[in-house]
Amino acid sequence: MKGMAKDLARMLGPRGYSMDPEDLLAYRHDALAYYAQGDPMAVALPGDAAQAAAVLAYASHHDIPLTPRGAGSGLSGGCTPVKGGIVLDTKRLNAIQEINRGNLTAKVQAGVVLAAFQRAVEAQGFFYPPDPQSKSVCTLGGNVATRAGGPRAVKYGTTGSYVLGLEAVLPDGEIIHTGSSCVKHSAGYDLTHLLTGSEGTLALITQATLRLLPKPPATCTALAVCANMEAAARMVSEAIAGGVVPSMLELLTTASFAVFNRVVKPPLPEEGEACLLMEFDGTAQEAQRQAQDMAAACQDLGALEVRVVPDPQEAALYWKVRSQLYPLVVSRFKRLVTEDVTVPRDRIPDFVERVMAIAQEMGLSMGLTGHAGDGNMHPTIRMDEVNDELQQRADQAMRRVIQAGLALGGVISGEHGVGLHKAEFLELELGREQVELMRRIKRAFDPTGIMNPGKIWPSETAS
Amino acid sequence: MKGMAKDLARMLGPRGYSMDPEDLLAYRHDALAYYAQGDPMAVALPGDAAQAAAVLAYASHHDIPLTPRGAGSGLSGGCTPVKGGIVLDTKRLNAIQEINRGNLTAKVQAGVVLAAFQRAVEAQGFFYPPDPQSKSVCTLGGNVATRAGGPRAVKYGTTGSYVLGLEAVLPDGEIIHTGSSCVKHSAGYDLTHLLTGSEGTLALITQATLRLLPKPPATCTALAVCANMEAAARMVSEAIAGGVVPSMLELLTTASFAVFNRVVKPPLPEEGEACLLMEFDGTAQEAQRQAQDMAAACQDLGALEVRVVPDPQEAALYWKVRSQLYPLVVSRFKRLVTEDVTVPRDRIPDFVERVMAIAQEMGLSMGLTGHAGDGNMHPTIRMDEVNDELQQRADQAMRRVIQAGLALGGVISGEHGVGLHKAEFLELELGREQVELMRRIKRAFDPTGIMNPGKIWPSETAS
Repeated sequence: MKGMAKDLARMLGPRGYSMDPEDLLAYRHDALAYYAQGDPMAVALPGDAAQAAAVLAYASHHDIPLTPRGAGSGLSGGCTPVKGGIVLDTKRLNAIQEINRGNLTAKVQAGVVLAAFQRAVEAQGFFYPPDPQSKSVCTLGGNVATRAGGPRAVKYGTTGSYVLGLEAVLPDGEIIHTGSSCVKHSAGYDLTHLLTGSEGTLALITQATLRLLPKPPATCTALAVCANMEAAARMVSEAIAGGVVPSMLELLTTASFAVFNRVVKPPLPEEGEACLLMEFDGTAQEAQRQAQDMAAACQDLGALEVRVVPDPQEAALYWKVRSQLYPLVVSRFKRLVTEDVTVPRDRIPDFVERVMAIAQEMGLSMGLTGHAGDGNMHPTIRMDEVNDELQQRADQAMRRVIQAGLALGGVISGEHGVGLHKAEFLELELGREQVELMRRIKRAFDPTGIMNPGKIWPSETAS
Repeated sequence: MKGMAKDLARMLGPRGYSMDPEDLLAYRHDALAYYAQGDPMAVALPGDAAQAAAVLAYASHHDIPLTPRGAGSGLSGGCTPVKGGIVLDTKRLNAIQEINRGNLTAKVQAGVVLAAFQRAVEAQGFFYPPDPQSKSVCTLGGNVATRAGGPRAVKYGTTGSYVLGLEAVLPDGEIIHTGSSCVKHSAGYDLTHLLTGSEGTLALITQATLRLLPKPPATCTALAVCANMEAAARMVSEAIAGGVVPSMLELLTTASFAVFNRVVKPPLPEEGEACLLMEFDGTAQEAQRQAQDMAAACQDLGALEVRVVPDPQEAALYWKVRSQLYPLVVSRFKRLVTEDVTVPRDRIPDFVERVMAIAQEMGLSMGLTGHAGDGNMHPTIRMDEVNDELQQRADQAMRRVIQAGLALGGVISGEHGVGLHKAEFLELELGREQVELMRRIKRAFDPTGIMNPGKIWPSETAS
C-alpha cells in the first residue's frame, strides 16, 4: 500500500489520487448503494490522457484490477470495484475542447458533465440530443461507455448515434484514436462503436468526438389521457406506424396524475389510468402541426382527453412533473426495483399486458412508466417494506418480466447497461456462441483481465 | 477438385454452386477489372443461412479461403479472391422478409438489391435513406459490409446508422444474431457495428434488421453556380455552420455544365467553374423554405447564380444529370482513378485548394466532384491514354491527395472501404497500435484466417 501511494503520487501529483478510507467508501457503488461490493485500494484522478495512460500501464504491470468511473450515476452496478484495486475517476478530465461550427462536431474530455455540454452547445445554436434523466450529473464518458439513452431516442437515437470518434487508453497504457471527425468513415473495424457500450471492460475512454445538430427552433407539447395502459400502448404503436415521430414520447401511470394535478390546469380526468406525454420539434408551425395530428389520432383511438400545449412555459410544467416522478416515487417507498427491458415498439401493448399480469399474480405493486416511443420500458416494483421474502418475490417477478420481454423479441437492457445487475441474463439474450465471441474480443483488448473485472459476464472472471 | 464439386453439390444442390471456368472468370474482380487477382476454385450460391453456414464450416474444416460477395459493384477490390478458394455469392438470399409498420423496421436477406428494397418500403410510405450510386445493382449485405454511403449522408448518415441487428455466420459455421429490432439496446458489445464495415473479413452477413423512417412528403431542389471551386467549398462550410441541413449537397465541376446545358433551361452561366446541387426535404412548405434560405445564403456569399427548383419533374432533370456524370466521364477517358478521401466539412476549402495544386504540379487532369455536404470528396484523375509513366504519376498524385486529406484530419475512405486499394494506407490513418488491435479482433473471429484473406491489412496475411 505504501508503495502504491508513492507510485500514484509520482504519476499523478498530490491532487491526483486518494487512499483515504472515507473517500474510498464513496467509490464502492454507483447510484444504487445495494450494489456495493469490493474495497478499492485507491482512487486515481488523472488530469490528462497521459496520466490516465500511466495509471493503466501501472495497473497492467502489477496486475491490479482497474474500474473506470464517470459520475457513478449508473443503475446497474457497472462501476462497482468488485475486485478492489484502483478506481479511475475521470472527473478532472472535464474540458470541452472544441465546438466546431463548420463541421457540426465537438471534442470533449470524458469527465464533462452532460448538462454542461448541452448548455455550451445550445448557447451556440446547436443541439446534442441524448438526455438520460441523470443529465445534471452524468458524464459524457459514462454516457458513451453505457450507450446512454433517454426520452429523445424515439426521434434522435442514443449516445451511439452521436459518437464519431474516441480517444481511449488500452490496458497496457497505449493511447489510440478511433474513428474521426468525419461524418463518413469506412476504413478498418468500427472500434468507436465497439467501445461504445462496453462498460469500461475493454479500454478507458478519455475523449470523444461528438456529432451535433442544428437546434430545432421550437417545440410543442401534447398529452393524451387514456382509459388504461393497454389503450395507451396501442396509441403509441399506431402513431409510430402512421409516421408520427415525436421528439419525446413518455408513457406515465395513474400514480403521476396526482402530481400533475398539483400544477396543471384544468386537472387531468380522474378516470384515466395512463397518459402519454409527448413533445414535437421543428419550426413553431411544424411542431404544432405534428402535435395536433397526434392529438387527433389519439382522439380517434379513444383517448379520454387530449391537450396541445404550444406555450413553452406551460409545457415546461408538464415536463417538470415528468422529471420529478422518479425521485418522488423513490421518496414514497422503502425500496424500488427498476427494470430497463426494451421491446420492439409494436409489441408494447403485449408487453404491458404481460407485466401487469405478472405483478397481479405475484401480489406486487408495479409501476410501468417508460420511453414508450422507443420501446424502452421501466417497470418498477414499489416496496413499502424491505424483507427477504418480498425481495425474493420482486427478484423473481423481474426475472419473469425480463423473460417476457425476450419472448417478444426484446432486449434485457435498453439504456442502463449490464453491469452486475444483468450479467446472469446476458446469455439468455445473446446465446452462448455470441457471448463466447465477446469474451474472445475482451481478451484481444485486455489479455490479463484488469479492466472492470466481474462485469457483463455471467461468471466472475473475464476469461 | 472433384471432391469439392461433390461436397458442394451435397450441401447446396445442383443450382447452388458453379465450378465452370467461364462463370469463375466473372468472380475474379469487382467493378474495377484492374483489381482482378487470384483464381477461385468455385462459386457457392447458398439459398439460405443454413446452407451458407455449411459452406463456411466446410471451408474452415479444409482451410479453404472464402471470399464473400454481394453484387461485385465495389471500387476497392474488396471481393477479389486474391487467394483463390471459394467465392460465396449472396444473390440467392434475396428475400425482403419483413416490413414492420408498427416498429419502423425491416428484415432483409443479404442479397436483396438496394433499389428494390427502397421501392418496397416507399410503396408503404417509408424511407431508407442510404443511396450509393450503384443502388440499382448493389446488395444490402454489401452495403453493410462496406458501410456504404451516398449523397444523403449529409442529413441521414450512412448504412451504419440504419443497421439495428445482423444474422451472421462465423467462420466455423456457427450462426449468431447480433443486436435486435429495438431502437435502444445496451447489453454486451456492439457486434452489429463491428461487422458493419468489416468487408467480409470477420464473418458472413446473411440477414440485416434495418431501421426505417417515415417518407418525407416533399423535396425541393436548389442550385448555386460559383466562380470557382474554392468559393463553392466555402459556401458548403458556411451553410453547415449556419444550421442548413440539405438532404443532398453535391459539388460539381465545370465539366458538368455542358451536360446540364443540354437539358436545363436557362443554361448555366459559362463563367462558372463549380456548382452546388442541393435537395431539401420535409413538407412542401418546409422544403421550399430551406431551399430559399440556402439560395439566399449562397447569393450573399457571392454565387454567380442561384436557382430554386420546387417542381419535382424539373428537379428530376438536374438529378438525372448528376447520376449520369460518372458513366459519362468514364466513357470520355481511357482510364479514371477515383479517390474517396473524406475530410471534416470545415476543411473542404483547404482540401480543394491542395488537391488542385497537386494536380497542377504533377501535370494531371483532375476532376473534383463529391458529396460536399458530408466532406466525402471524389477527386478523379482523368487519363486520355494508359501508360506506365502516367499511371505511376497518377498513383503518386493520389498518394499525395490521401496524405493531404489525412493532414487535414480526414480519413482514407469515406464510403468505398479499404479492400485491396487502400490497404497500404490503413496504418497511416490509424497508427500501428490500432491496426494491431484490429488484427487481434480479426483472430478472435477468424483464427485460421479463411475470411476474405488479403484485404484491409497492409501485408498479405491476416495474422
